[in-house]
Amino acid sequence: MRRMEAALLLIGDELLCGDIADGNGPFLAERLTAYGCRVGSLCVLPDDGQAIGHAVNRALAQYDLVVLCGGLGPTSDDRTTESVAQALRLDLILDPVHWERLRQIFLAFQGKEPPPGNEKQVRFPQGAEVLPNELGTAPGYALRVGSHVLVVLPGPPRENRPMVDNALLPWLDRNLSGRVRFQGMTFRVFGLAESEIGHRLGPLESRFREISFGYRFVFPEILVKLRADPDATDRLGAAAGEVSCVLAPHVYGTGEQRLPAVLGGELARRGLRVVTVESCTGGLVAQLLTETAGSSAWMERGFVTYSDVSKRELLGVPESVLENTGAVSEAVARAMLQGALDRSAADVGMAVTGIAGPGGGTSEKPVGTVCIAWGDRNGVRSAVYRFHWDREYNRLISAWAAMRRLHLHILGAPDP
Amino acid sequence: MRRMEAALLLIGDELLCGDIADGNGPFLAERLTAYGCRVGSLCVLPDDGQAIGHAVNRALAQYDLVVLCGGLGPTSDDRTTESVAQALRLDLILDPVHWERLRQIFLAFQGKEPPPGNEKQVRFPQGAEVLPNELGTAPGYALRVGSHVLVVLPGPPRENRPMVDNALLPWLDRNLSGRVRFQGMTFRVFGLAESEIGHRLGPLESRFREISFGYRFVFPEILVKLRADPDATDRLGAAAGEVSCVLAPHVYGTGEQRLPAVLGGELARRGLRVVTVESCTGGLVAQLLTETAGSSAWMERGFVTYSDVSKRELLGVPESVLENTGAVSEAVARAMLQGALDRSAADVGMAVTGIAGPGGGTSEKPVGTVCIAWGDRNGVRSAVYRFHWDREYNRLISAWAAMRRLHLHILGAPDP
Repeated sequence: MRRMEAALLLIGDELLCGDIADGNGPFLAERLTAYGCRVGSLCVLPDDGQAIGHAVNRALAQYDLVVLCGGLGPTSDDRTTESVAQALRLDLILDPVHWERLRQIFLAFQGKEPPPGNEKQVRFPQGAEVLPNELGTAPGYALRVGSHVLVVLPGPPRENRPMVDNALLPWLDRNLSGRVRFQGMTFRVFGLAESEIGHRLGPLESRFREISFGYRFVFPEILVKLRADPDATDRLGAAAGEVSCVLAPHVYGTGEQRLPAVLGGELARRGLRVVTVESCTGGLVAQLLTETAGSSAWMERGFVTYSDVSKRELLGVPESVLENTGAVSEAVARAMLQGALDRSAADVGMAVTGIAGPGGGTSEKPVGTVCIAWGDRNGVRSAVYRFHWDREYNRLISAWAAMRRLHLHILGAPDP
Repeated sequence: MRRMEAALLLIGDELLCGDIADGNGPFLAERLTAYGCRVGSLCVLPDDGQAIGHAVNRALAQYDLVVLCGGLGPTSDDRTTESVAQALRLDLILDPVHWERLRQIFLAFQGKEPPPGNEKQVRFPQGAEVLPNELGTAPGYALRVGSHVLVVLPGPPRENRPMVDNALLPWLDRNLSGRVRFQGMTFRVFGLAESEIGHRLGPLESRFREISFGYRFVFPEILVKLRADPDATDRLGAAAGEVSCVLAPHVYGTGEQRLPAVLGGELARRGLRVVTVESCTGGLVAQLLTETAGSSAWMERGFVTYSDVSKRELLGVPESVLENTGAVSEAVARAMLQGALDRSAADVGMAVTGIAGPGGGTSEKPVGTVCIAWGDRNGVRSAVYRFHWDREYNRLISAWAAMRRLHLHILGAPDP
């Protein structure tokens, strides 16, 4: 069975002047590869009607599937649909259903009719099948061109990515045959360097040649992706078991859920509520723990005690401890958490105090020194870390380290 | 004077299956744009000799400058130089100076002669000028093809990026004339729909044809970018003045600084310290305000009062107010902030309570209902919003709305 070949076209001036890097292309490449397509090219083009038209015609001549993202907005620099229609010599036709939906959105939220610019968002090339966009005003569409297919999606990643999973892939399922789904599995690893993971899995890569091993560093975690060839899906389980053994206890989960959601789910399952106490992370731990819907089941309250006086007043950290050990110390981290547990209805908690940088470091406590405490009413433990990233990454990895410590604690697992 | 037009070609199978996203293209786009080039296309291609050859010929026919990155390694899947030579019908010639350098590297670090695969890294197409690579074994090269130029650079980002700054741009300086640095300006807009902005600026776009207007939606704000043609930089100021009039008071700043940093800077300038009080945003406001280095100058403390009991205990919100109006009400938002100001050393503050979704809405208070309070010891004001995004975006826009309200308050500006 021949693999479907795909080309990706990403539209936007802003992607060509260094303002932002396109992320839709890599996302689509990952999804389409997992779906069984071979992605043969990925091109970023300006909001230029002629360039878009040429690229669409050239790609459709060479590839089974062409996915084009971006340039569906209401402003004058959004030229994608107009260019596609010209290149393929198709009329543009107003879709009354989607026009009405757009009107309702504007009437509900802005109390007025849509401005003229929005009308072009619901004009589609003749023969197009509209793909609904739940999160924006520009729907996408799929168009058959001979035996080839052109799919057009909006560019904003928050609209684009759900539409890849909820509209593009289901459309391919319904309309194209000859596809192959690969089976795969993702391990989520926190606390091991990528080179160390590669080193440990090298022997398995040699033994399981019918399984492809992929590594992706999405700070601060690393995803290990196993993918089985279509005729070797039975070997996937064996490989996954061995990977699990070799990387444990650094694997905190598998699949799509990231650490904050994994920890939240574990807390909810056990009926535990959490308090967060943060200095250098400034609210990041609380924010991550409340990103997931339903977080009121596990989030009790959070303290952002950025100043020393707030550590004393809100948490009762003794002035003597602050003076003797400094605000960045394991003793202060433990006192912060103890104070928070005493002053809340939470069952468990974690505290973070450190030097995120770029300023504030000393030779004794350089930038990246972070003290973390975790525990419950029966006891509080602590550890000190030395991170070597920039401010943003030091904060993020500190928040993850605190969540992972608490996660291991409530699982009753030993420290890694 | 015509701007130099450039095309970027990025080579590598790993960039097309979602394992990693190319970052060299966006980096080059930024550097070349700042240098005065217009980057007209950015294409990622597989390690496929024929695809590379076709792409090089096509790009050289259309663009003044073609920069090709990747596929210069020693292994069999690295085919770039061979493909370039075939496409341009040039012989490959061993460069004795760089071969000797490569030998010395291997003798010094591995104590042996280079393996055979490395030799191809120092064979260059006839007429190429070698660009040294301080950080790896594969040098790059520049090649004139008629009046057009092809530059080939290694793919690993830590070799590629220094070579852009230290080899590519200096080579252009030495060899090409006619480059132009052009001028631009960015307005940061919060609180106006993109279509409304386009509608308001349409007449200016027609009047200032020598200025390009770009719009970028980076939720929850919109960036309006003006860029002047090289011979029209004097018109930029006039256009910027008019844009400013038409969009005020929704323009909160210009340039690179986002709202949290703008607000932080304004607080620091006035010697004010802030307290954050958050329910549905769960620490997001505090986290955004502490992302910027030096935030201890303005951040005093933050409360994440997720449960009703924490609102009462930590902030003294009266039980009667919670019962009469519900936790999501302007009265509770004001009481939260008043309690926080009474219980901290902060001068100003803001409070957010709302229903981020997806659950928790009622017909009276649907998902997206968010109450915000802001002010200081002289008085606290409040407003209610109805957002219509998903949980993540409802939280983010709520945090921004609170920051912008406080920002306007400390500026002494009227509400928009």
